[in-house]
Amino acid sequence: MKSFPVHEGVPGFRFAGIASGLKPNRAKDLGLILSAAPCAAAGAFTRNRVKAAPLIICRKRVRSGMLQAVLVNSGNANACTGEQGLQDALETCDSLSAHLGIKPSLVVPCSTGVIGVRLPVSRVLQALPGLVGQAARDRMNDFATAIMTTDRYPKIVALKETIDGHALKVCGIAKGAGMIMPDMATMLVFIVTNASIEHGLLSGLVSRQVSETFNRITVDGDTSTNDTVLVLANGQSHRPIASRHARGYAAFSALLQTAMHELSLKIVQDGEGATKLIAVSVINARTRNDAHKAARRVANSCLVKTAFFGQDFNWGRIMAAIGSSGAMLDMHRVDISFNGIPGVRSGLGVNANRARLKKTIKQERVDVTIDLKQGRHSCRIFTCDLSYDYVKINASYTT
Amino acid sequence: MKSFPVHEGVPGFRFAGIASGLKPNRAKDLGLILSAAPCAAAGAFTRNRVKAAPLIICRKRVRSGMLQAVLVNSGNANACTGEQGLQDALETCDSLSAHLGIKPSLVVPCSTGVIGVRLPVSRVLQALPGLVGQAARDRMNDFATAIMTTDRYPKIVALKETIDGHALKVCGIAKGAGMIMPDMATMLVFIVTNASIEHGLLSGLVSRQVSETFNRITVDGDTSTNDTVLVLANGQSHRPIASRHARGYAAFSALLQTAMHELSLKIVQDGEGATKLIAVSVINARTRNDAHKAARRVANSCLVKTAFFGQDFNWGRIMAAIGSSGAMLDMHRVDISFNGIPGVRSGLGVNANRARLKKTIKQERVDVTIDLKQGRHSCRIFTCDLSYDYVKINASYTT
Repeated sequence: MKSFPVHEGVPGFRFAGIASGLKPNRAKDLGLILSAAPCAAAGAFTRNRVKAAPLIICRKRVRSGMLQAVLVNSGNANACTGEQGLQDALETCDSLSAHLGIKPSLVVPCSTGVIGVRLPVSRVLQALPGLVGQAARDRMNDFATAIMTTDRYPKIVALKETIDGHALKVCGIAKGAGMIMPDMATMLVFIVTNASIEHGLLSGLVSRQVSETFNRITVDGDTSTNDTVLVLANGQSHRPIASRHARGYAAFSALLQTAMHELSLKIVQDGEGATKLIAVSVINARTRNDAHKAARRVANSCLVKTAFFGQDFNWGRIMAAIGSSGAMLDMHRVDISFNGIPGVRSGLGVNANRARLKKTIKQERVDVTIDLKQGRHSCRIFTCDLSYDYVKINASYTT
Repeated sequence: MKSFPVHEGVPGFRFAGIASGLKPNRAKDLGLILSAAPCAAAGAFTRNRVKAAPLIICRKRVRSGMLQAVLVNSGNANACTGEQGLQDALETCDSLSAHLGIKPSLVVPCSTGVIGVRLPVSRVLQALPGLVGQAARDRMNDFATAIMTTDRYPKIVALKETIDGHALKVCGIAKGAGMIMPDMATMLVFIVTNASIEHGLLSGLVSRQVSETFNRITVDGDTSTNDTVLVLANGQSHRPIASRHARGYAAFSALLQTAMHELSLKIVQDGEGATKLIAVSVINARTRNDAHKAARRVANSCLVKTAFFGQDFNWGRIMAAIGSSGAMLDMHRVDISFNGIPGVRSGLGVNANRARLKKTIKQERVDVTIDLKQGRHSCRIFTCDLSYDYVKINASYTT
């Protein structure tokens, strides 16, 4: 498996990203992914009971298993906008499908931005001809920029594997920095590939891999109304992956898994205000649920996250967090290590390592491993620290 | 029911608060409550599985139903300190009981501060004679100051009711500003009263009232290892409350409830970095559990809390929070009001009220009422906003 330059693109896919006036300052806010032919498609969507209008349409259309174009806007979530919101999203997609001369059911909408404000449909409609005109294989970066909200940088992963002389490519683009919580597909993620794989097989793979990647990250414990992961496979690699035992399945699965993992880490690293990536691993929990509860509690604890921001070696807050997680534990048996250095042994601080521990938590990535010694289950959640900038960004987002 | 000046005190109780060197800068850090005679006692304690040493001792001794003295230190939680921590807590209590000439089982310890550091026992022991010597009826404020950590001000409530010419007094002192979460008694709270009520009756009352007051507040969703509520009733009012039907029971119950409610609000108002008190009420939920889940999710949402800090009228974040709470709801039926002004009706923003809503959320207290229209259950949680100062305070607490 190797990375490749983003401008090489993926055969059969074109991208565009332009400014349509949804965001102030003429920032890019409208993006398009366009496939030359209908693709096998699979998706994962928010489990939030409050769902955005475009997500409702997108989820429905993905069920058919075929998509050809994705229209994404930032600057407006088109969520909590009622029946009008559904009509608005449909109108933009219908207009795009007419421009492209393809069936409306092959086009899906995605939105991200402020909740509860009507989508300025006319701006989107006016911008569509220009958007379609710009679409090109090497414009992935424009697309990635157009879907950003509080993101500091575009997030793209491009991976390939050569099988019998043919390049199998997987390219993923993500946006997301806040309202990130590991309870589902938790951001906008678009992955395109030239793999030839049918919808059902792709769907199963996507579901499993999302639960192991995007559902294992958290920035602030909040869950969005618009979270979407879409995977489009256009079949141009000429080497059909017909079953889990087919030649190429393992390679494709590995490419997809790595792309999702890397994108999920990029989202946490770009967590609103984040200065640090923190991997919280709970091991030897009594049940799978216990491992998840304990890891999430630590990863979402404001006290743990502010301590990391302050570069403060405060293991007591981690003990307090796991103790209140509901997971079964005996505080006298808990071990905790930081980047492999023992910090807590049998519930007590390891004073001999204090200088090394104080140094290691200053690193940009800290791996915290919490051994409960209650059983055999484990869970790892990626999170970031909580800084002044998180507050700053979120105290002034809509105004 | 009336307030009374704190310096009047409660007959039969003395208080002290001095500096023993546990905190830097000679700040007060050691407090004492001393009753002239053994009191009926009841308590409520953290449900965190990681429990501090003093809490383990305190909980055990309260079960006997009788206490006479409470020794409290700030600056050190004596939590995650193992067998040594238990010995340290016992040693300080034993020394105090010897000084006072009372049975060791009538003395309980409470600690608050940094987790995982051994209690400097010798400093406490050296300070005990001075502490006992200072104890006086009118030193409640010294005690309240000595138990503070990140609190900005001491928290005292003094209430009385006159029944047949006799004054029934209830006086409560609390500390707590961070690691506050509505899942139990969530801070240190001491309530003294001259009521004459036996242990069993008092315990039932305390359990019920704690669940309706201290278990309904949150600052940061974190739950401490040391949370304790202790109530001491010395019986000096000469009017025994022998049962729930006794004369005086209703008045005492109301005094205790009001004292707990007012102390719990003081804790949220002094939430680390807080600029605003926010009451989140979920009404007409399908089940009691749904009402709790939705109210807690909103009250603990970093995005909701930062929006309030920014005085930003961002109802979409409240919709997103309830949608991901797990509570049953139909987003098209949800109504939300802010200080009584409708802000969301049937899941859509009420644009006509926008100017009034933007104004009302600038107030120091905002009552948010979320009507799910699913059933008849409700829950109210008090919380505060999330500000730069929360991050500042918690990024630099131990170092």
